Amino acid sequence: MLNTHSRTVYTPEHEAFRETVRAWLQKEAVPHIARWDEQGIVDKDIWRKGGEIGMLCPTVPEDYGGLGLDFGYNAIIDEEVSYAGTPLGFSLQSDIVVNYLVSYGSEEQKREWLPKMVSGEVVTAIAMTEPGTGSDLQGIRTTAKKDGNHYVINGSKTYITNGQNADLILVCAKTDTEVEPAWKGVSIILVEATRDGFKRGRNLDKIGQDAADTSELFFEDVRVPMTNCLGEEGKGFIYLMSELPQERLAIAIGAQASAQRAFDDTVAFTKDRKAFGKTVFDFQNTRFTLADLKSKLQVGWAHIDWALARHLKRELTPEEGAAAKLWHTEMQWEVMDKCLQLHGGAGYMNEYPIARAWRGARVSRIYGGANEIMKELIGRKL
Amino acid sequence: MLNTHSRTVYTPEHEAFRETVRAWLQKEAVPHIARWDEQGIVDKDIWRKGGEIGMLCPTVPEDYGGLGLDFGYNAIIDEEVSYAGTPLGFSLQSDIVVNYLVSYGSEEQKREWLPKMVSGEVVTAIAMTEPGTGSDLQGIRTTAKKDGNHYVINGSKTYITNGQNADLILVCAKTDTEVEPAWKGVSIILVEATRDGFKRGRNLDKIGQDAADTSELFFEDVRVPMTNCLGEEGKGFIYLMSELPQERLAIAIGAQASAQRAFDDTVAFTKDRKAFGKTVFDFQNTRFTLADLKSKLQVGWAHIDWALARHLKRELTPEEGAAAKLWHTEMQWEVMDKCLQLHGGAGYMNEYPIARAWRGARVSRIYGGANEIMKELIGRKL
Amino acid sequence: MLNTHSRTVYTPEHEAFRETVRAWLQKEAVPHIARWDEQGIVDKDIWRKGGEIGMLCPTVPEDYGGLGLDFGYNAIIDEEVSYAGTPLGFSLQSDIVVNYLVSYGSEEQKREWLPKMVSGEVVTAIAMTEPGTGSDLQGIRTTAKKDGNHYVINGSKTYITNGQNADLILVCAKTDTEVEPAWKGVSIILVEATRDGFKRGRNLDKIGQDAADTSELFFEDVRVPMTNCLGEEGKGFIYLMSELPQERLAIAIGAQASAQRAFDDTVAFTKDRKAFGKTVFDFQNTRFTLADLKSKLQVGWAHIDWALARHLKRELTPEEGAAAKLWHTEMQWEVMDKCLQLHGGAGYMNEYPIARAWRGARVSRIYGGANEIMKELIGRKL
Amino acid sequence: MLNTHSRTVYTPEHEAFRETVRAWLQKEAVPHIARWDEQGIVDKDIWRKGGEIGMLCPTVPEDYGGLGLDFGYNAIIDEEVSYAGTPLGFSLQSDIVVNYLVSYGSEEQKREWLPKMVSGEVVTAIAMTEPGTGSDLQGIRTTAKKDGNHYVINGSKTYITNGQNADLILVCAKTDTEVEPAWKGVSIILVEATRDGFKRGRNLDKIGQDAADTSELFFEDVRVPMTNCLGEEGKGFIYLMSELPQERLAIAIGAQASAQRAFDDTVAFTKDRKAFGKTVFDFQNTRFTLADLKSKLQVGWAHIDWALARHLKRELTPEEGAAAKLWHTEMQWEVMDKCLQLHGGAGYMNEYPIARAWRGARVSRIYGGANEIMKELIGRKL
Repeated sequence: MLNTHSRTVYTPEHEAFRETVRAWLQKEAVPHIARWDEQGIVDKDIWRKGGEIGMLCPTVPEDYGGLGLDFGYNAIIDEEVSYAGTPLGFSLQSDIVVNYLVSYGSEEQKREWLPKMVSGEVVTAIAMTEPGTGSDLQGIRTTAKKDGNHYVINGSKTYITNGQNADLILVCAKTDTEVEPAWKGVSIILVEATRDGFKRGRNLDKIGQDAADTSELFFEDVRVPMTNCLGEEGKGFIYLMSELPQERLAIAIGAQASAQRAFDDTVAFTKDRKAFGKTVFDFQNTRFTLADLKSKLQVGWAHIDWALARHLKRELTPEEGAAAKLWHTEMQWEVMDKCLQLHGGAGYMNEYPIARAWRGARVSRIYGGANEIMKELIGRKL
Repeated sequence: MLNTHSRTVYTPEHEAFRETVRAWLQKEAVPHIARWDEQGIVDKDIWRKGGEIGMLCPTVPEDYGGLGLDFGYNAIIDEEVSYAGTPLGFSLQSDIVVNYLVSYGSEEQKREWLPKMVSGEVVTAIAMTEPGTGSDLQGIRTTAKKDGNHYVINGSKTYITNGQNADLILVCAKTDTEVEPAWKGVSIILVEATRDGFKRGRNLDKIGQDAADTSELFFEDVRVPMTNCLGEEGKGFIYLMSELPQERLAIAIGAQASAQRAFDDTVAFTKDRKAFGKTVFDFQNTRFTLADLKSKLQVGWAHIDWALARHLKRELTPEEGAAAKLWHTEMQWEVMDKCLQLHGGAGYMNEYPIARAWRGARVSRIYGGANEIMKELIGRKL
Repeated sequence: MLNTHSRTVYTPEHEAFRETVRAWLQKEAVPHIARWDEQGIVDKDIWRKGGEIGMLCPTVPEDYGGLGLDFGYNAIIDEEVSYAGTPLGFSLQSDIVVNYLVSYGSEEQKREWLPKMVSGEVVTAIAMTEPGTGSDLQGIRTTAKKDGNHYVINGSKTYITNGQNADLILVCAKTDTEVEPAWKGVSIILVEATRDGFKRGRNLDKIGQDAADTSELFFEDVRVPMTNCLGEEGKGFIYLMSELPQERLAIAIGAQASAQRAFDDTVAFTKDRKAFGKTVFDFQNTRFTLADLKSKLQVGWAHIDWALARHLKRELTPEEGAAAKLWHTEMQWEVMDKCLQLHGGAGYMNEYPIARAWRGARVSRIYGGANEIMKELIGRKL
Repeated sequence: MLNTHSRTVYTPEHEAFRETVRAWLQKEAVPHIARWDEQGIVDKDIWRKGGEIGMLCPTVPEDYGGLGLDFGYNAIIDEEVSYAGTPLGFSLQSDIVVNYLVSYGSEEQKREWLPKMVSGEVVTAIAMTEPGTGSDLQGIRTTAKKDGNHYVINGSKTYITNGQNADLILVCAKTDTEVEPAWKGVSIILVEATRDGFKRGRNLDKIGQDAADTSELFFEDVRVPMTNCLGEEGKGFIYLMSELPQERLAIAIGAQASAQRAFDDTVAFTKDRKAFGKTVFDFQNTRFTLADLKSKLQVGWAHIDWALARHLKRELTPEEGAAAKLWHTEMQWEVMDKCLQLHGGAGYMNEYPIARAWRGARVSRIYGGANEIMKELIGRKL
């Protein structure tokens, strides 16, 4: 379980916050899961509701409307959102996007956006991937050309989380297409969804994560003032790299919590379901499989607490973050797939939570940098 | 590939038939896949069209309207249907249900049903599983009580393939609920879909196999004449066991062919997709992964040909059939999952064939007897 | 690495002790490994030398000649002995046997044995397994029959670590062969190696752990006074169970450290070894394999620190200990086998450390309760 | 089993030969295994004894003293030698070396060597690997410099099977160290063990295969006449490549047979061994594990028969041979390791056949081209 006495990283304040979050999720999110899945997107007003109880961007300083808390509160939210099986895209805003603004935004940008990101008035997205480029940021073809004191942005993006709901998009674009090495030409530009020439494409039909809108975005001669550049021009690549350990840790935490949920559900299911005159749990194969997964979950929680503690002290290295993302998402998948199998035919039916969880989990080994990229990063530093 | 010179089991006649089947699938089935998936079921008229070119029940003797061919023709159809990624439920009718009628049906039953099963006028289903029973046939609770010269059937079935389209259902029911051991009370009763008290439930929402209708069926005081009993009363369990090797071989064949398709698609995809200045295929990890899968596919085809040759000589044992089902479906899953991963983000999008194939493949380790059951069967005979 | 800043469980005092241990091992043990392996046993005087610097039973209270330290010192020793690849059997004495005496021994037994176990004058063994019984303690056939104020012990034991060097053996025997349930008849009797009728059998020829003497022991009418019973008669089974979490944690720690060593050696080897015009490390397959193992080691160290911290607070449950033994030994094996493979032909040659480490590691999944037993224990408590 | 009715590739003549081979092995080889292991090499006279009953080089044409049989007879020998667990190095001579002479040898070379290779008077080895080069033939540093009508050979070789017993060594050496690409400089030179300057180094101490002498060889100004060159100068690399499919198939066959033996032994062991009041086989985990392995063995035999049939028709491609080597050796290892585990503590003791088989099997994934090389070869051709 998530909040047992054997966790080591959280304070009583964290745990008290967990209770609030958990209760809120049961009341405001869980009852709508099926409907949100059906419509392929969460209701946009859930963002404001979440903002009201402090579930968005808790680390934002009080000066900018936030609570000025540590990342442990983010972690609590990630665990609970994931354990509850809710498709909220809060993690992207709270764990990733907001840090770009806090760390590199101008005072003006911070004043404009941070309070609304905290309150949920503004939903954000970050637009990196392009059709055909995958994780290769240096190869992006979206351009931001200067024209007077404006940029003119042209290009296409895809697989953009929160793409349909986003009010503000952080667009990775080349402000310099000639410079060598290529990554020195990448900048991050803030693009409001109201700008002319910005168009949302399809909300993509995915294997799972049905209500996590993931979209194509198009930019056709989109003009934004040069003051919309985040931090310095040509530093986009460096900025992106700097936030990766936290993003990867957040993914690892979510993966761990969702694996725990699948496990808990499966223990309950196999103890309930009868076959050949006993419960499914009574078969040695079932118990052995679950025992093996239980061990992995135990090991995983210990590692989450260790990694989170290091991150809170700003000691988690990029390689350690990559290792966390790699290990927890692979473990998550093993848990999901074995748990589904223990459900028998029921496991293949979307009406059972395990089916939905399993479909949703498959993306973890791919997004946030595919696990092959993680191996590349870790290997390079050996 | 399916029809290379390295296959050993097929005759030139089989291969000629393959060409017919393949061309027909491309023309009549492939263009409709997306629409069928959308509607959750294939158009019923595809059955008649398939029947016209001999794709249904090719082993039925000529006396009953069939072609009197060997099971190799079924295998050809299974390979091609699966390789083409089409969701046709022909295998159930041709590889499984028809044999019950041919082997155990009365002359009258044969005359009535076989010609129509061959022509596609009649779609069949077999109703074994019940809510909560899984593979445990002895534990079924559907009853067929005698009332004069009729049976009165009551009970619920679930996970029934072709459930929505079926005109005739072979229902496993207890004609004797007292006898010990319990399996001696199981009989198979033919129930026409037009009978009063028969009701179709939901077409279940599944992880994949979107257009393979899989349904709940309800029987409430359904009266059928006692002549509708297949073979002898109380022998249902034995009949079911007798046809399992063929069912399992058919599943193995389909699994192998669909794995080959995913592999072929992935080789093409990775050679086309660029990342970090080269193709995805150019990375050693990609080549090693594909090389490993290629080896498994090679081994798999050799085994299919061996097992099929044995089955054509009636020498394939139940354990060998179970081993085939187990091995090929586990291999299929490994191929699917690794191929999806090599697609990166695209792999998670339903618009890419690998996503659909992957979702569809997950059921293979569960249906036709979960792989745990296969292990139980094989283990028992060691 | 074992002593990086990312460890969380050790104090500076622990780490200072580590330096002592490490230096001692390099000077007194590492130079003799090959010779010890050749002779199938360590020199007995290494026990006294180890005792001199506090490497034996550091938790024994000062009253009984010990240092009265916490188990963290044991863990430090286990890590270093294992990382150095030395075949010292200290863990058995310090982590396991000594606790039985400390916890359940009579004052007289403590006075007699503890100081000598600390100094290394006395080497101990615990004799549980019998030919044909494996981990099934209730099924043992060795008996201790009362005769006046003596026990007369008869039976055979096998796979007994330190069997050749042991001066004192804790023998599990049935003092009551009738009682139900059978485990209530099991007692632990202290048997001095000088007793008449005690005979050492073969020092068994094993796959690895060449110098860790593992032997058969025979008891033929061995008479010992009843005061040699450890604690209460009939409580042997309960005593054994009570010490298992610590034993399993110790095995987990050793497994983790030896895996780390194999990994470190392999990184060095692959960076040095050339093939096809580059180093073996330069191949993506090598880097990916090592990156994956690195992640597992990172996760493993986090878990060791967590589990050890819990154990120091007496909070580690039997199931958690079993999970640690299971996970770390399986991980150790994966690391060993993949590292050996990356050595190519050299990996198969005993002159390379990886070959010796690999052979030695295979026993981890078997001893201290086979991993199947661990699954049984964990599964039972779900 | 190896000779059941379900095999498809062998004729009754093959099977009759199998009986002869099997009986001979039981009489002449099996009783000496322990002694041979102890001495690290088989008695040299076993080669003549084997020659007497046709166990050496059965494919050599009658003109050169052979039986002129097909490779199926080699396969029979490989299966039986491997299943019997005997450490005979016949496969190297019969499956590999002899083909170089038959295919590329001069008439004089054939007359001199083939009859003695058939009779066992001459034991051969092939010297490819050098310290530090692994599978990279182009990188060899052994040179054969011309001096009048002689070559003068200098260099070191290692991991040479039959190195101690060999009378004739086929040495891969560079006759041209300048040519580009480098492989065009490689030639194969026949070197008699009696030549001055030839020295055998250590018989290497290996993880397993104790009696399969594997040695270092040294060449210091070894002079051999130019007529000792096999075929054409500079074609050595091409010749080596041409014989690889057969070598790899032979390894696959041996791996499959030894896996079958381990499996058969383990079924017997687990049915015999008691634990917790039943046999080890009675536990579901044991049965499931064995059932899974049984499936893999079934699939493996089908593939062996397919691949062998293709090879007998000269249709087996290098990639197919590589896939066979890869798949069967990986499968062999899985079988070995799981079977050892099912033996519990006994599995770690060299006195049990499983321990010896397991140690011996670990080399299969490494020799004959490490499995990573197999993946590279297969991947390249996709």
